[in-house]
Amino acid sequence: MSRHTGSKLKVAVLAATGMVGQRYVSMLSDHPFFRVAVVTGQSSVGRKYGLATAGANLPTSEEAKTLTVRPTSADALDDVDVVFSPLPTDVAQTLEPELARAGFNVITDASPHRMDTDVPLMIPEVNPEHLQLLDRQRKVKKWKGTLVATPNCTAAGLAMVLKPLHDKLRLKRVIVSTLQAVSGAGYPGVPSLDILDNVIPYVKDEEEKVEMEPLKMLGGVSVDRISPAKFEISAMVHRVATTDGHLESLYVETEERFDPEKVAKLLSNFRGEPQMLKLPTAPAEPIIVTAVEGRPQPKLDRYAGTVPGMSVVVGRIRKGLDSNSGRLTLMSHNTIRGAAGSTILTAELMYRKGLLG
Amino acid sequence: MSRHTGSKLKVAVLAATGMVGQRYVSMLSDHPFFRVAVVTGQSSVGRKYGLATAGANLPTSEEAKTLTVRPTSADALDDVDVVFSPLPTDVAQTLEPELARAGFNVITDASPHRMDTDVPLMIPEVNPEHLQLLDRQRKVKKWKGTLVATPNCTAAGLAMVLKPLHDKLRLKRVIVSTLQAVSGAGYPGVPSLDILDNVIPYVKDEEEKVEMEPLKMLGGVSVDRISPAKFEISAMVHRVATTDGHLESLYVETEERFDPEKVAKLLSNFRGEPQMLKLPTAPAEPIIVTAVEGRPQPKLDRYAGTVPGMSVVVGRIRKGLDSNSGRLTLMSHNTIRGAAGSTILTAELMYRKGLLG
Amino acid sequence: MSRHTGSKLKVAVLAATGMVGQRYVSMLSDHPFFRVAVVTGQSSVGRKYGLATAGANLPTSEEAKTLTVRPTSADALDDVDVVFSPLPTDVAQTLEPELARAGFNVITDASPHRMDTDVPLMIPEVNPEHLQLLDRQRKVKKWKGTLVATPNCTAAGLAMVLKPLHDKLRLKRVIVSTLQAVSGAGYPGVPSLDILDNVIPYVKDEEEKVEMEPLKMLGGVSVDRISPAKFEISAMVHRVATTDGHLESLYVETEERFDPEKVAKLLSNFRGEPQMLKLPTAPAEPIIVTAVEGRPQPKLDRYAGTVPGMSVVVGRIRKGLDSNSGRLTLMSHNTIRGAAGSTILTAELMYRKGLLG
Amino acid sequence: MSRHTGSKLKVAVLAATGMVGQRYVSMLSDHPFFRVAVVTGQSSVGRKYGLATAGANLPTSEEAKTLTVRPTSADALDDVDVVFSPLPTDVAQTLEPELARAGFNVITDASPHRMDTDVPLMIPEVNPEHLQLLDRQRKVKKWKGTLVATPNCTAAGLAMVLKPLHDKLRLKRVIVSTLQAVSGAGYPGVPSLDILDNVIPYVKDEEEKVEMEPLKMLGGVSVDRISPAKFEISAMVHRVATTDGHLESLYVETEERFDPEKVAKLLSNFRGEPQMLKLPTAPAEPIIVTAVEGRPQPKLDRYAGTVPGMSVVVGRIRKGLDSNSGRLTLMSHNTIRGAAGSTILTAELMYRKGLLG
Repeated sequence: MSRHTGSKLKVAVLAATGMVGQRYVSMLSDHPFFRVAVVTGQSSVGRKYGLATAGANLPTSEEAKTLTVRPTSADALDDVDVVFSPLPTDVAQTLEPELARAGFNVITDASPHRMDTDVPLMIPEVNPEHLQLLDRQRKVKKWKGTLVATPNCTAAGLAMVLKPLHDKLRLKRVIVSTLQAVSGAGYPGVPSLDILDNVIPYVKDEEEKVEMEPLKMLGGVSVDRISPAKFEISAMVHRVATTDGHLESLYVETEERFDPEKVAKLLSNFRGEPQMLKLPTAPAEPIIVTAVEGRPQPKLDRYAGTVPGMSVVVGRIRKGLDSNSGRLTLMSHNTIRGAAGSTILTAELMYRKGLLG
Repeated sequence: MSRHTGSKLKVAVLAATGMVGQRYVSMLSDHPFFRVAVVTGQSSVGRKYGLATAGANLPTSEEAKTLTVRPTSADALDDVDVVFSPLPTDVAQTLEPELARAGFNVITDASPHRMDTDVPLMIPEVNPEHLQLLDRQRKVKKWKGTLVATPNCTAAGLAMVLKPLHDKLRLKRVIVSTLQAVSGAGYPGVPSLDILDNVIPYVKDEEEKVEMEPLKMLGGVSVDRISPAKFEISAMVHRVATTDGHLESLYVETEERFDPEKVAKLLSNFRGEPQMLKLPTAPAEPIIVTAVEGRPQPKLDRYAGTVPGMSVVVGRIRKGLDSNSGRLTLMSHNTIRGAAGSTILTAELMYRKGLLG
Repeated sequence: MSRHTGSKLKVAVLAATGMVGQRYVSMLSDHPFFRVAVVTGQSSVGRKYGLATAGANLPTSEEAKTLTVRPTSADALDDVDVVFSPLPTDVAQTLEPELARAGFNVITDASPHRMDTDVPLMIPEVNPEHLQLLDRQRKVKKWKGTLVATPNCTAAGLAMVLKPLHDKLRLKRVIVSTLQAVSGAGYPGVPSLDILDNVIPYVKDEEEKVEMEPLKMLGGVSVDRISPAKFEISAMVHRVATTDGHLESLYVETEERFDPEKVAKLLSNFRGEPQMLKLPTAPAEPIIVTAVEGRPQPKLDRYAGTVPGMSVVVGRIRKGLDSNSGRLTLMSHNTIRGAAGSTILTAELMYRKGLLG
Repeated sequence: MSRHTGSKLKVAVLAATGMVGQRYVSMLSDHPFFRVAVVTGQSSVGRKYGLATAGANLPTSEEAKTLTVRPTSADALDDVDVVFSPLPTDVAQTLEPELARAGFNVITDASPHRMDTDVPLMIPEVNPEHLQLLDRQRKVKKWKGTLVATPNCTAAGLAMVLKPLHDKLRLKRVIVSTLQAVSGAGYPGVPSLDILDNVIPYVKDEEEKVEMEPLKMLGGVSVDRISPAKFEISAMVHRVATTDGHLESLYVETEERFDPEKVAKLLSNFRGEPQMLKLPTAPAEPIIVTAVEGRPQPKLDRYAGTVPGMSVVVGRIRKGLDSNSGRLTLMSHNTIRGAAGSTILTAELMYRKGLLG
């Protein structure tokens, strides 16, 4: 079936009136590969998307504003080429495989299928080769479409920084402590009474994801399975009163000597396939290293780089307690690099590899 | 020289109009051992203390309000028995030894002399025996008075929790990540433009203190010197938008097996000499262990316990990556347990041991 | 029927696990007139109150902690003498009259019946004489019990300040602009994403209440009805990122000359029947006037006075654009003076007047 | 003297490393009329501007980064055509007239000379005709250059909205209550301890400016003087925990009937000379009227419109207590429309009128 309309692929954004959904629609305004053809929602079904999101302050294309919000179901998706899914966990659990079975190419932010053996968990700079897992997925699942996942918002920035470190220094242990923005909990999310003048050293189910997902992403892939990377991660997570941008402080133990200057170069020189392919949403520098004292900071660095919100900013690179350990702080935009942005970048990569449509 | 007036010792609070200074004066209102006889300041010299601090919202005794603010110098201190010094670093550097030489018993929050070989660095529950270092101090320095120090506000809560852990499990490594309140920077301190909707992963000179001071406090003392504890600390500090209460998340490696349930009991059963002596400012439980999900939190726990601000609250005790490691989060009031409160408790301990007056 | 147990009246707190409900239970710990005998809730029915509110940081009596949470219905209330109702609007609408009909003395924070012709809307310092409306209520409604209301949290502090002003200067117009705390919206209430680094110039249905309720409270009462006060109020409300304490800035036009010094005296000398009767929850000064520059402030003044949270603090009293107008700023604790505290004070007044039990 | 270099005028930005100074340099990057040729500072004299402001997060041209910071004095300004001055009050007081005397065209954000009889106080959409006051200025002062002022950051947004209202409805009284961002106090400005979980109902000297400056701006101009507008303003100002964007709620009394729908049209249709002349920094709509409930809000609306930060956003337009009064809320970016942006727009207007160079 030919799904193209002119030169752009048609995409559906599920839960498009939600916080991350709005981010998708905004980032896809005037996209060179994709055109938002369908938006779905829940309470606003039947309304124009522009009215349903009136008052939101992300820029949205005029075309998207005139779309009518549809219910979130396979029937409502017409013949779109890609489905972006920032669905709530419980809905995603059953609906996403159903959509893949029905022939849709689904790329999801939701957590239920991230650790499934035959679902690639993608940060395109980190593990583009994991897309070959789709062969197995087709064979085993016998779906007409595909299901590909984007990691947890904290794991996304972490995996990006661990990739070059692991390749070069061989990681043994990573002790990470996070300071996460309230947007990570969606909307309405964190009550203001809970977070004003406060810190909450807990986010439900978060530590497990941060400890597991990067190991899958940094794992090797063979014909039909992923071998998780062999190092260990300990995560202690905290919610703080910032709007956007997760900050993570890392203590790492490595097989090779940790030399802060070399690590700074290693990280700032890191490039992935999206940079090679010059994908539209690929930032020139996936990792920006700053030497300014007291940086990175969410307010100052969350939009750093050539594609706002897509670069991870790293600072305070210094030695650990011995020569084979080190410390650094990273900051990554949780709803862009940690959600909509990475998902769109994965779609761009799949498009270039002929895996869509 | 007899310095007593009636049954209470006379104390001077230096920099008494500052944020920590006000905390001292407030905590010393109606104290059973001490009476504030002298307050010093800088810009408000000559004014009544009550007027100089009008608008502050800590309760202050009527007697203290009528004191005239004096300049911060030896001459102005009359014959007080104890001097509490929350002076700025540069002033403390030279003035505190000068006061000790002149015969005053100085207990200081300031940092310059904390690591001096012959200055006890005190958290009374942790290292009461370190006061015997004063013998050496008198001998070597030939001061008529004494100089005793209180640790950095972050190190204070940390040392309290590490003490029972080290005694029982023998610490090897401690990886700590902090989320510190703005009051830790004094007043005016952190500009609001820097911290609203933001996190700063840096506090000047803080990490060095957090990594060094607990080792001195947990060290053994012989006749004339401290042998620092043998484990290692790595600190990564962050400033967040909370008013009071430093939160610290720890990853610890231990010689003995780390059993979360046993550690919970170990910490909640911890008692020190101040509890045995029933000192006025000693909380019934120096460490309160909470099992409530997502606790401790600065807003909810900063005043927990029988003496508000003096108990360290610990939660999220859990296993680490192997059986000899563990994780936990602690929260401690930075201007009370981390400054004025611990200093007053040290003075109470010294009073009971006959080291004052 | 005799409902007393020993010397204290038995009270029920509805929705006792909610934010205001917890405030009631805490304020009623060790109360000289009342004893909490029944607590009701919704999702926590059947659990112990202490467990259902574990982690809350208001002090609660051990006795209250052992109560089992009951469903919110007439059947569950046994023979309590007073029912405190901070119910959600929709539930209060029908349940409160039902309870009054069944014989309970209900005092409510909820809004549905505040403006009912035969329901007294009480701030005990402002309009104690309005309780005589209960004669009419009994006659018309033929209820066995009674229904009495507490005003909106913003209207409460405002009415307190307007009372002495209107008595002495005869108000013509009041232009009030508010800066309201997030606790005014209950829990979970205002999402943090909405209020961090932001102000919302709107609170649903709030302005109507602020413009109407004080006129009823300051109105005259005859045997069977209230004649609303004759002046006018314009309200513009704003939600800001404070936890507790509503601040209100007023421009008032008066019949008599507005002399700031005289107004300061008038307000600070204001006393009501609760002060005369020395009711337990009556603050010595219902209105505290501050001359400190830049005050009142929520963080510094919300617990001012002899009964924390019960005094309204006023500052910045100054002239308006002509001699018969003036300006001032007031700050009042919205969940204490604006809710639980005023309701308890009303119950105390009714108790003393023999209107309960 | 010919000061032009190529086609662009050369400008100096004084105090260019400060918060507003950085805003100027950023807004002047790639400006069609102006080129930043000189930047001055205090503590960073002699350093490269890019290094002196490293870590700031406003975009700055590469050219500006290479400028060496000079001391703030006439000697250091070479032959620039325009001087933008966001100097501190005390320095501005004497230096600005000195610079004008020496031949520089100074446009200032500072307050000392705003109300001087022969200094135009400009919002280009509001009172472009006031520039003719420069004739008198030259005659009386005998300066070789000129001195023009930009109003207080709160007065700027207010004057913009009052202009069409006064022209059409004839204002009698304006009662304004403000909620101002911390950036209005500069850097370091408001201590975080003062504003977290708090509101301060006071900003030093602010109310006087807000009450006076709009009357000058809306006044008529004759050959040699301004006749202030005849209505009255009452201002009650508050500092809140927002970073940027001052919100102001107005109660207005008018000679003509206040019809909310007509006022909405009147405001959204308002255009000034900058729009007619299509000046580079002129927003398409100086006033944007929103009908979305609960708007405007600083976080969502501060960058609304075609030139971010230059449009004033107005909402909640509604009737007052009688037919000749009304209410509305406005929000305006305090460091753009309230400072650097308006000043640059004034310079653009002067350039087009041949008043520069």
